[in-house]
Amino acid sequence: MSEVPSRVVLREVGPRDGLQNEPPVSTAGKVALVDALGTTGLTEIETVSYVHPKAIPQMADAAEVWSAVERRDDVRYSALVPNLVGARRALDAGFGDIEVVVSASTTHNLRNINRTPQESLDGIAEVIELAHAAGASCQVIVATAFGCPYEGEIAEDVVASYAARARRDGADSICFGDTTGMGSPPRVRRLVGRFRDLDADAPLALHLHDTRGTGMANLVAGLELGVWRFDASVGGLGGCPYAPGASGNIATEEAVYLLGELGVETGVDLDRLLDVAELAQRLVGHELPSRVLKAGPRTRLSDSS
Amino acid sequence: MSEVPSRVVLREVGPRDGLQNEPPVSTAGKVALVDALGTTGLTEIETVSYVHPKAIPQMADAAEVWSAVERRDDVRYSALVPNLVGARRALDAGFGDIEVVVSASTTHNLRNINRTPQESLDGIAEVIELAHAAGASCQVIVATAFGCPYEGEIAEDVVASYAARARRDGADSICFGDTTGMGSPPRVRRLVGRFRDLDADAPLALHLHDTRGTGMANLVAGLELGVWRFDASVGGLGGCPYAPGASGNIATEEAVYLLGELGVETGVDLDRLLDVAELAQRLVGHELPSRVLKAGPRTRLSDSS
Repeated sequence: MSEVPSRVVLREVGPRDGLQNEPPVSTAGKVALVDALGTTGLTEIETVSYVHPKAIPQMADAAEVWSAVERRDDVRYSALVPNLVGARRALDAGFGDIEVVVSASTTHNLRNINRTPQESLDGIAEVIELAHAAGASCQVIVATAFGCPYEGEIAEDVVASYAARARRDGADSICFGDTTGMGSPPRVRRLVGRFRDLDADAPLALHLHDTRGTGMANLVAGLELGVWRFDASVGGLGGCPYAPGASGNIATEEAVYLLGELGVETGVDLDRLLDVAELAQRLVGHELPSRVLKAGPRTRLSDSS
Repeated sequence: MSEVPSRVVLREVGPRDGLQNEPPVSTAGKVALVDALGTTGLTEIETVSYVHPKAIPQMADAAEVWSAVERRDDVRYSALVPNLVGARRALDAGFGDIEVVVSASTTHNLRNINRTPQESLDGIAEVIELAHAAGASCQVIVATAFGCPYEGEIAEDVVASYAARARRDGADSICFGDTTGMGSPPRVRRLVGRFRDLDADAPLALHLHDTRGTGMANLVAGLELGVWRFDASVGGLGGCPYAPGASGNIATEEAVYLLGELGVETGVDLDRLLDVAELAQRLVGHELPSRVLKAGPRTRLSDSS
C-alpha cells in the first residue's frame, strides 16, 4: 500500500468512447461537452476518433468537432485512430497525442477489423513512426486485456507480450483496456505484474469498465500497484455494446469521488464535473449510470428541517 | 492482505431491507422470494421486520410471510425488530436470530424514532435480554456508521462507543450500517480499527450500500481487515430513500461475483441467484440496479457465430 500515488491523472473518454456507444449527438453538442469538460480541472480529454464513418457514424464529424473545440493550454486533447490513414488525419488536424488499439483476443480483433493481433501490431508500428515523425506521442491500447466476450480467458502472457511488442516498436505508453468489464483485482494484479516483468518502466494506464460492478475495486487495485493514469467517462457515458442496458466505462465523477475519499488528488472540481455529467445526460437524452451523479457526493446532505 | 478470509457469509437482506424501500409486493410474492433465495446456497436471510404497520406498511404482513415460508435447515432466518414489542412478536413467532438498530447520528435517530441514541441503547439492552431468555441471538446494527444524510460526519469514536456499549449489554454481534452509502475504504478501516481497539473479539458484520459507487471497494477493504460477514440484497433491491433513483444495498450477485473472482468462497450458486434476481425484478415491476444481473458473469460469453 506504500506506493499508492498521491496524485492521479484521469483521462476523460466520454466525448469519444462514451458517445461512440450512444444515440447520435449533434456536432455542437459534442463541442459543448468537450469545452465544458475542459473547465473541470481534467487535464486529458480523448476528444474524437478518426475512424471510417461507415464503421462508426457517431464519429463522422470528428474534424468539425475538433476544429470547433476551444483548445485550452491546460488540457491535452487526444484522438483515437484505427490505422495509418486515420493517424495522418489526426496528426494533420494538429493532435499531439494519438491512441491506437489492438485487441489481445484474436477473435475480437478479427471481428472488429479483420486482422490478427500480429497484423494489427505490424500496422501500429507504422502509426507510431508516423506520430513520432510529426512530434506527437502514441499510446497503444490493448483491448480485451482482462477477458474477451467471445473467447473468455485471454492469457496474461499474451496480453503482456503484445504490450511489450508495442513498446519495442516505440509506443510512448500502454493502456490495458477492460473492454467488456471482465476485470477484477486479482486479474489487474496479475496482468500489471506480468507486463512489468517484461517492461518495468513503461508508462501504464488502465481503461476500466464497470459492467460487472468491479470498476472501483479494480481502480483501487491499480492504485495499490502504483498505477496513476486511468480512463473514465463523464456520467458513465457509453454503455457496453455486448450487453444492452449494462454499464461501460467507469464514471469520471465516481472515480473523482472515490479518489478524493482515498486522499488521492485528481485536480478535478467534482461539483463542476457533476454539472457536466448533467449536460451529458441531456445530450444523450437518457439517464446515465453514474451513481455519484444520482446521489451527489457525501457532502450533499438532506434538508434536515 | 494475509488475513483475507477464505470464506464469507453473506446475509441476504432483500426480503426485508430491500422490499421495505420498494413498491408493495404481495405476501405470496414475498414468500416466493424468500423460498427461492433459500435454494441458492445463501445461509442467512433477513426475512421480515416486526415494525408497526403505520411506520412501514410494506412489512404489515410479516407474520403471514413468516408462517408461509418453507423453513430450511440450512438457512438461518432473522427478523429485524424496532423495540421490545417487536422483539416479543418475532421471538414468539419462532425466530432464533433478531436484529435491532440504533443510529449513530442523533438527528437520524430522533427523526426515525424520536429517541436519542442513548435512549435507544437503553431499550436495546432489554431487547437483548429478552432474546437471550428465549434462547435467541441478537445483533445490534449501528446505522449511519459512516456518515449521516443530515449531520454529515459522525465521529468514529462515537460510532464505536455505541457498538461497544451494545456489546457490554450482551449483543451477540455488531453490524455497521452504511445507511446512505457514505462509506469509503479509509472510513471502513478507521471505524473497524477503532471498534476493535474497544472490543477486539466482537463478531462484526458490514452492511454496505452502493449509493456512491463505493460498495465493492468497501467490501474489499472490509475483507482485507478480516471481516467475513456482509449484508447484501438480491438484485440490489431497495434503493436509497434519501436520493430517489439512487442505489441502496450492494447487490448480492455483485458480491458473490466479486468474491468468486477474489477466490473467496460464499457457497452461493451464482446462476441460481441470478434467476432469483430476475424474480425480484418481476415482483417489484422495475429494473434493478445490479450490474451482474444486467451483464451476467464473465463466463457468459457472446455468441461468436
